[in-house]
Amino acid sequence: MKLAEFELIERLTRGLKPNEHVTLGAGDDCAVLDLGVPGQEVLFKTDAVVEGVHFTRDACFQRVGRKALARCLSDVAAMGGRPSAALVTLGLADDYRVEDLEALYEGIRSLASQYGVAVVGGETTRNPGGLFVSISLIGLVPKGKSARRSGAKVGDAIFVSGRLGGSMDGKHLDFEPRIEQGSWLCECHAIHSMMDLSDGLAGDLRHILKASGVGAELFARSIPVSLEARRRSRLGEGAKPALLAALTDGEDFELLFTVAARDAVRVLDSWKSRFPEVLLSCIGRVLEGAGLRIRDRLGIRELNAHGYVHFSES
Amino acid sequence: MKLAEFELIERLTRGLKPNEHVTLGAGDDCAVLDLGVPGQEVLFKTDAVVEGVHFTRDACFQRVGRKALARCLSDVAAMGGRPSAALVTLGLADDYRVEDLEALYEGIRSLASQYGVAVVGGETTRNPGGLFVSISLIGLVPKGKSARRSGAKVGDAIFVSGRLGGSMDGKHLDFEPRIEQGSWLCECHAIHSMMDLSDGLAGDLRHILKASGVGAELFARSIPVSLEARRRSRLGEGAKPALLAALTDGEDFELLFTVAARDAVRVLDSWKSRFPEVLLSCIGRVLEGAGLRIRDRLGIRELNAHGYVHFSES
Repeated sequence: MKLAEFELIERLTRGLKPNEHVTLGAGDDCAVLDLGVPGQEVLFKTDAVVEGVHFTRDACFQRVGRKALARCLSDVAAMGGRPSAALVTLGLADDYRVEDLEALYEGIRSLASQYGVAVVGGETTRNPGGLFVSISLIGLVPKGKSARRSGAKVGDAIFVSGRLGGSMDGKHLDFEPRIEQGSWLCECHAIHSMMDLSDGLAGDLRHILKASGVGAELFARSIPVSLEARRRSRLGEGAKPALLAALTDGEDFELLFTVAARDAVRVLDSWKSRFPEVLLSCIGRVLEGAGLRIRDRLGIRELNAHGYVHFSES
Repeated sequence: MKLAEFELIERLTRGLKPNEHVTLGAGDDCAVLDLGVPGQEVLFKTDAVVEGVHFTRDACFQRVGRKALARCLSDVAAMGGRPSAALVTLGLADDYRVEDLEALYEGIRSLASQYGVAVVGGETTRNPGGLFVSISLIGLVPKGKSARRSGAKVGDAIFVSGRLGGSMDGKHLDFEPRIEQGSWLCECHAIHSMMDLSDGLAGDLRHILKASGVGAELFARSIPVSLEARRRSRLGEGAKPALLAALTDGEDFELLFTVAARDAVRVLDSWKSRFPEVLLSCIGRVLEGAGLRIRDRLGIRELNAHGYVHFSES
């Protein structure tokens, strides 16, 4: 479904016409608009979570609401921006429970308050199949400073924040959007490309590579594997190897970015002193060509779209 | 369901905190943000159409797409603004047909192009119950000029554009959002309050009255009844009287606004010379108190929430 989805979107969004306000249209974490705010551009984003797809009826609705907004905040972070205002669209099943919606809103409201986001309205309608929650978000980013997927350059060092894999144990609901880090990176450093990790490192890095027309090599031993991924890997026969989980589990909502090799040490050092509580790892480098490879103790191997073939055997 | 929906929204949106960017939060046709654009404020709106609620699988998807965007444009028009950029959120049933989505997008794209709106991306996800289409829109309005629901004053003349009722015969899909008219009204005239008609005059006018803390009297013979509503009223026993249809059918997407009585003739005259192809009618006046009454040849009567009781007997 995933690949078909990307193809579908590409087909639908082909040939969309910009206007004088559009700095960056479809295809990145947010759209970027120049509406005339002095020194700033406007980020515009929408994201949805759906019952039966992203959560079930017995979910904690407060966490579902929090996640719905947090996903959008993560996209604003990935552009180096700060969020400003959100709208909430609710599609309600006929048998919705008011207390679920209140919990959902409480989750949205409390995260919004934490990040200074104003919830300025929305839309409520029926959706016979179950609850549909869509968040639209406006943010601001210093003009010309927004981080794109398309700027990676040959020789760049590849960085990722946090630890990857095993997000389904809870982090996918409770992750902290990297607003401070993303904004700091774009203001203080010459970031070449950035995005947030939602589908897993092995898949998401390909978006940067494709948009930038480059390839990459990852260092297996540098990839920050989460405790949850390690724990799950020890659950016996058929358990997912921890590195594979870190490459493919998805919903990490960490920042993936590239900077010129000459800036790598400075970025790493200043990150450590600025955000000592959040791990930053240099996990690879950008290469000429189009492939994605991974280097481990056995050598260098091609990484396929979801990393499965090689690693499920290792 | 409708009244419960308003109650629900009021309950959910109670106590939402604004931030320094918010000029107007939830409760009007659009939110209004001051992001620092010199001389302008930003309008922010979201609206959704859903399979099984607003359209069926055998619908013309091009018209469904057009309508999804047109509804948002109508809300921007009702604030006196001009649209700038849109995001499209699609929730797809598992058995979606690519050609339907292409037709949907074609409808969005062609209306967007007509009004200079840039479609700058969106989101695609699964929605097991059927197609869910949500549009988010950003627009601009001259600073301090946006029309609200809350500004109606005792003595105001009440105006409506176009002809009302019978929209289900086709207008609900093909209506022209009143962007030019709304923008012109706010720039050239001292409009006191405005909204667009989506749930029917009898219901929608109450939003203006409630927000403004006033009442109103409508003149039955001045209400512009559409040809479709008249035609339907002649379909025999049980047909809806034409005036009742004009009051309650909904989906008219016309502008409803109030101006000081002393400005009424000037607005009417200059509208006629500026927009000769669009009827403008003075349909009543704003009164002290809280009720909504209608005056016809039999006298003055209270109009209940949906106008049904009195008029279904007439």
